[in-house]
Amino acid sequence: KVIWTLLVPILGYASSLPVGDDSLCTAEDLAKYSIIFTGKWSQTAFPKQYPLYRPPAQWSSLLGVTHSSDYSMWKKNEYASNGVRDFAEKGEAWVLMKEIEEAGEKIQSVHGIFSAPAISSGTGQTSTELEVHPRHPLVSFVVRIVPSPDWFVGIDSLNLCEGDHWVEEVSVDLFPYDAGTDSGFTFSSPNFATIPQDTVTEITCSSPSHPANSFYYPKLKILPPIAQVTMVKIKKSQLGLPAPYLNVQAKRNEITDTVS
Amino acid sequence: KVIWTLLVPILGYASSLPVGDDSLCTAEDLAKYSIIFTGKWSQTAFPKQYPLYRPPAQWSSLLGVTHSSDYSMWKKNEYASNGVRDFAEKGEAWVLMKEIEEAGEKIQSVHGIFSAPAISSGTGQTSTELEVHPRHPLVSFVVRIVPSPDWFVGIDSLNLCEGDHWVEEVSVDLFPYDAGTDSGFTFSSPNFATIPQDTVTEITCSSPSHPANSFYYPKLKILPPIAQVTMVKIKKSQLGLPAPYLNVQAKRNEITDTVS
Repeated sequence: KVIWTLLVPILGYASSLPVGDDSLCTAEDLAKYSIIFTGKWSQTAFPKQYPLYRPPAQWSSLLGVTHSSDYSMWKKNEYASNGVRDFAEKGEAWVLMKEIEEAGEKIQSVHGIFSAPAISSGTGQTSTELEVHPRHPLVSFVVRIVPSPDWFVGIDSLNLCEGDHWVEEVSVDLFPYDAGTDSGFTFSSPNFATIPQDTVTEITCSSPSHPANSFYYPKLKILPPIAQVTMVKIKKSQLGLPAPYLNVQAKRNEITDTVS
Repeated sequence: KVIWTLLVPILGYASSLPVGDDSLCTAEDLAKYSIIFTGKWSQTAFPKQYPLYRPPAQWSSLLGVTHSSDYSMWKKNEYASNGVRDFAEKGEAWVLMKEIEEAGEKIQSVHGIFSAPAISSGTGQTSTELEVHPRHPLVSFVVRIVPSPDWFVGIDSLNLCEGDHWVEEVSVDLFPYDAGTDSGFTFSSPNFATIPQDTVTEITCSSPSHPANSFYYPKLKILPPIAQVTMVKIKKSQLGLPAPYLNVQAKRNEITDTVS
């Protein structure tokens, strides 16, 4: 990392810094955010093989972490960790929580873990709070798609710091990913381990390119977002009040009103 | 409440203050705790109708709140709120989160909400952190038993304040409760609304007194605990470090080692 940082100005890559680079955050103090996850997995938007029974379409708990660029929870085109595999396949969070804690202990690359309750239907919301630090301004999280072989949505290393200040609000559309650890092709495929393990890949309306795939919609150019996440900075003046999360209630109602 | 408080010294009930009374907390500042939930729902301990498939025995997300005695999340022998019903029946947290937020807004009786990820098997662990306040020293939470009609485990108004200081560590064995909203008798009973709604009742090895009930073990005097929760105070000196939850890692490993 040190060498790479030195190379940047020499090679003139400053304008193409990777998403998630946190070396330039000069914001003072910590910042707290409310994070609101909205499932948009409706039968209207995703009619193909939409799971109605045992279990119906739903979302697992949300598990997230605030961290520096020395840590990565998951990354497109890289291999999933054992923790991400357990979470994407079964919604089991324990190994992933241990991995995060170890990264925090060994290389001080983690600020905190956060989680939000599961959602018992394909459309719906859940929320919690998170805290970022100038040395740990990145947010990553995963939510398992239930039922599915090893599919999830999430964010990888979103930087909430912009130079000397914290972003006020950010929303991101989410699309499905395959953890590369189970070769099931449809929401309710039986377990079928992928050996050797594949990398994490985005699932699109044309990839995997096979009519049996649950997200294969050859007439679409892109899938509609299957979920959305919004992070809203909590005002300093409201921290320490009995219920610091209340100030986002109005915002959250706005969002609720627009859920189809 | 004011009248009742005045009556206490007159009637001499001081030694029988209800669990959860928070009027005597003179601790200074906030306190943070790590909360570790351990599922003990094994086929060995609970062989009857143990759910093995679609879905196998598991635990929902944990949803909890720190509050004053002016708020109650749930209470034995009282009617469950709509939020607790949704959570106990479906693991859906949204309405319960809204109820908690409203209580925080209207009567300032809530300090904060916390949640921990679900556990994908009957035995296993999950954890998170919580914060208590001298005016909000009580902890309540619920975890749904999955699958089940409307059964859950939880804590109602556990006081973490002892006079002028915060409890260092506390463990509580947990036993199943029926939310009184679904008349299903076994883990995998189909939905069957209880009309009119019944109160929250503890499920024991002899009650409901019917051989078909999943927890009916006529040869036992009491059920083994189906879960356990441990809260460990996080040392002040460790707050604000990059990973404040790390100090309970050793403790947590100890607990893990003893899970059967």
